[in-house]
Amino acid sequence: MVIDLNADLGEGFGVWRLGDDEALLDVVTSANIACGFHAGDPLTIRRTCAAAVDRGVTIGAQVSYRDLVGFGRREMDVEPEELCAEVLYQLGAVDGIARAMGGAVSYVKPHGALYNRICRDPEQAEAVVAAVADYDRALPVLTLSGSVVHEIAAREGVTTVVEAFADRAYTGAGTLLSRRFPDAVLHDPGTVAARAVRMATERLVDAVDGTRVTVDARSICVHGDTPDAVALARAVREGLIAAGVTLKAFA
Amino acid sequence: MVIDLNADLGEGFGVWRLGDDEALLDVVTSANIACGFHAGDPLTIRRTCAAAVDRGVTIGAQVSYRDLVGFGRREMDVEPEELCAEVLYQLGAVDGIARAMGGAVSYVKPHGALYNRICRDPEQAEAVVAAVADYDRALPVLTLSGSVVHEIAAREGVTTVVEAFADRAYTGAGTLLSRRFPDAVLHDPGTVAARAVRMATERLVDAVDGTRVTVDARSICVHGDTPDAVALARAVREGLIAAGVTLKAFA
Amino acid sequence: MVIDLNADLGEGFGVWRLGDDEALLDVVTSANIACGFHAGDPLTIRRTCAAAVDRGVTIGAQVSYRDLVGFGRREMDVEPEELCAEVLYQLGAVDGIARAMGGAVSYVKPHGALYNRICRDPEQAEAVVAAVADYDRALPVLTLSGSVVHEIAAREGVTTVVEAFADRAYTGAGTLLSRRFPDAVLHDPGTVAARAVRMATERLVDAVDGTRVTVDARSICVHGDTPDAVALARAVREGLIAAGVTLKAFA
Amino acid sequence: MVIDLNADLGEGFGVWRLGDDEALLDVVTSANIACGFHAGDPLTIRRTCAAAVDRGVTIGAQVSYRDLVGFGRREMDVEPEELCAEVLYQLGAVDGIARAMGGAVSYVKPHGALYNRICRDPEQAEAVVAAVADYDRALPVLTLSGSVVHEIAAREGVTTVVEAFADRAYTGAGTLLSRRFPDAVLHDPGTVAARAVRMATERLVDAVDGTRVTVDARSICVHGDTPDAVALARAVREGLIAAGVTLKAFA
Repeated sequence: MVIDLNADLGEGFGVWRLGDDEALLDVVTSANIACGFHAGDPLTIRRTCAAAVDRGVTIGAQVSYRDLVGFGRREMDVEPEELCAEVLYQLGAVDGIARAMGGAVSYVKPHGALYNRICRDPEQAEAVVAAVADYDRALPVLTLSGSVVHEIAAREGVTTVVEAFADRAYTGAGTLLSRRFPDAVLHDPGTVAARAVRMATERLVDAVDGTRVTVDARSICVHGDTPDAVALARAVREGLIAAGVTLKAFA
Repeated sequence: MVIDLNADLGEGFGVWRLGDDEALLDVVTSANIACGFHAGDPLTIRRTCAAAVDRGVTIGAQVSYRDLVGFGRREMDVEPEELCAEVLYQLGAVDGIARAMGGAVSYVKPHGALYNRICRDPEQAEAVVAAVADYDRALPVLTLSGSVVHEIAAREGVTTVVEAFADRAYTGAGTLLSRRFPDAVLHDPGTVAARAVRMATERLVDAVDGTRVTVDARSICVHGDTPDAVALARAVREGLIAAGVTLKAFA
Repeated sequence: MVIDLNADLGEGFGVWRLGDDEALLDVVTSANIACGFHAGDPLTIRRTCAAAVDRGVTIGAQVSYRDLVGFGRREMDVEPEELCAEVLYQLGAVDGIARAMGGAVSYVKPHGALYNRICRDPEQAEAVVAAVADYDRALPVLTLSGSVVHEIAAREGVTTVVEAFADRAYTGAGTLLSRRFPDAVLHDPGTVAARAVRMATERLVDAVDGTRVTVDARSICVHGDTPDAVALARAVREGLIAAGVTLKAFA
Repeated sequence: MVIDLNADLGEGFGVWRLGDDEALLDVVTSANIACGFHAGDPLTIRRTCAAAVDRGVTIGAQVSYRDLVGFGRREMDVEPEELCAEVLYQLGAVDGIARAMGGAVSYVKPHGALYNRICRDPEQAEAVVAAVADYDRALPVLTLSGSVVHEIAAREGVTTVVEAFADRAYTGAGTLLSRRFPDAVLHDPGTVAARAVRMATERLVDAVDGTRVTVDARSICVHGDTPDAVALARAVREGLIAAGVTLKAFA
């Protein structure tokens, strides 16, 4: 029984901060570090890499569309050739800084609108996978269960890792319930921690239709942009440890 | 008798182009590739790296202040810690792309206002040198004769390489005559080529005061942002070859 | 028989130039001036406004998605509230500069992907129209025949003006033939000028299926980003004048 | 006995927030609204303008160098012609939005490094004043006592308004004590409020050398980027009202 906990880190820009990076680094085993395109100026990236290396937290590159004002949350029709170059640029930039701090980029987690888009758009998925393959074929890509990235990556010899969301409701089909529904996001730390434990120990989650769904995830994503979110992330960590689950990065 | 010819390349951004990269790549032995901060979107960087690798031209990272609208030509009071992180970010980004194209960043040439600033500002010079040392101590830094970078780099175990300008007038003190003077820039291809040959073969240049000045340069910088500039660059190359000088990258 | 000729101007950014603004200003009666989001730094905007005022060319605001690297050519899922504020910001910025130069923004022409998107997306079209209505309800919006903007603008008391493209092939349905087809763009100056004359004098264009289609346009769009494009634009202007058509801005 | 209280507002960007705009709008009589160059996306500008109009707070344009990552705090050698165009662009953008919300830009307060630079650099000061004169000569410019802006603005027929800082230590010469000194910034609400009252009622401040210095300010600047800062700003407001001072915008 081994699981990874990942979270988005280093998502400030210049004077602006977002989330409690210090608190989260004590919770997670993998840090998705913003690469400068949706957030993350170079100094923030360097400090976040250094802090992750200090704590033995594994570093991932949280690559994104180029969209600071929209925080990478708006879908963009970027040409595949250009998207591939943009991902490569971000990977190199963060890996260069991570290496200078004594670490290295060990996986890739696309951010926001790009994350969602490549789950269903083969063209953009291929562009992202091609960038990873060009940069370092050994870097796994974190994605959703059912994403088209799995097959495309496999074809290119790139590994994928499935992540689950302990604080999100699941449909009977094993997909995330859309945020448009009122109960899409769970807030009670005890409930969320219990779901994380079941995900890690039984590979199951209770869906909204009452069925039990298989969730074969190697990592659980937690958030840290509000004080409540940090408390929830801590509850998940503590719940997993109490249940005898080993917290360990996948990469 | 060996000399390097270097030029700025990949200085477009999106739809905008600047200079004739194809023509210049047939002239130079070293390409200073823009890193995205003053110019150079990721796709342009990738194409320029690929074209340089194809022709066996050595790739350098042309790191800059973050200033697209000013093309990196305006001095900025960037804090050293931040400047260091920005240089590291740019180095990693372009090196990552260069490696994916089968090459690698082999030297660093700061651009525009940053180039000039670090010749005389020890604080910013230390920041740039620290970034190079953190990234890869083996990368030489291209700078002017007399620049404070030489001493600071030596202290950190980083090599520096002196470059000269065949199309610029020199003072009797061996410095470039300020562009505010009417004869600061030479335009006649024959004259410029002859100066390049003397620089490469005799390590000398005729200064504006009539004296001969020692210019101990391992590289000569040529420009390519106008058709005339490309013709001038070609004349320099041909003049050097005709004089029996070997054109060879320093890195 | 009166027609307007409009073209995109001021589409440089910093050192980068695009198109021959001087040449085009002698051809057109309306200048769509870039507002800084896809192109157009403030100094370029000011010079272009001043040059337009000098020649008596009417100034329009060429509002765009915020996308310098993509030149505003990539569709973006911007929230309507945000898009509305972005259009307002651009309108105010260019109008402020135009007024300081003795002119004023007299119409609005959305650019690139935004132009195409709002022809069919009522949500984004409403956002753009709301910005115009909030800023100055008297400013007409230039759009395609058949665009949803017409009805939405009418509802808000905002005028629309139809433009046509003399160098583009039309379908029998009166729409532009997609650029994916080989004959979508016409290049012969004589042919294009003749089409412009027929558009202005008979309100007709020969469609690719052999039918004649009504094109009830008050403005014809010309391009100027290549030497050939400028020659074509001049041919259109001269053809129209020779046919007795009065060239006159619509706003 | 009349004084204005001004503060910086709308200094977020996209998802990032800075300071408590709502709280500050209940304290101040003048809001320096960020214009998008150091902070302030269009939607934030619109919301801040709307909130200011709702409360009857006067709107000023907080124009800045173009420097998001540095928050406009780094001096830049921008050419005067370009700086002038940049200020014009920002003025028009925020005024356009303010007018659409039922208000208008009523004064100009340069931000950060630009604010400090133009107190002593006549060239950049002239560029800023020229932009104000070009846009609307009736807009006053907020600046420090002793700034070169006063004379330059007077020459152009532009009004200046002096502001003071109740939470900053003053030298015997009437200038602000540099922040490099430990006691440069005062933190006790009672002390700061008492200084504000004396500034408003007696036009005096106790300098660090024990002398009393004349501070002939029409406005006092307060900050709001931390909870403590908001409490201090409230204390200043309440102290002034309790002392019978009328709080009233200068513009």
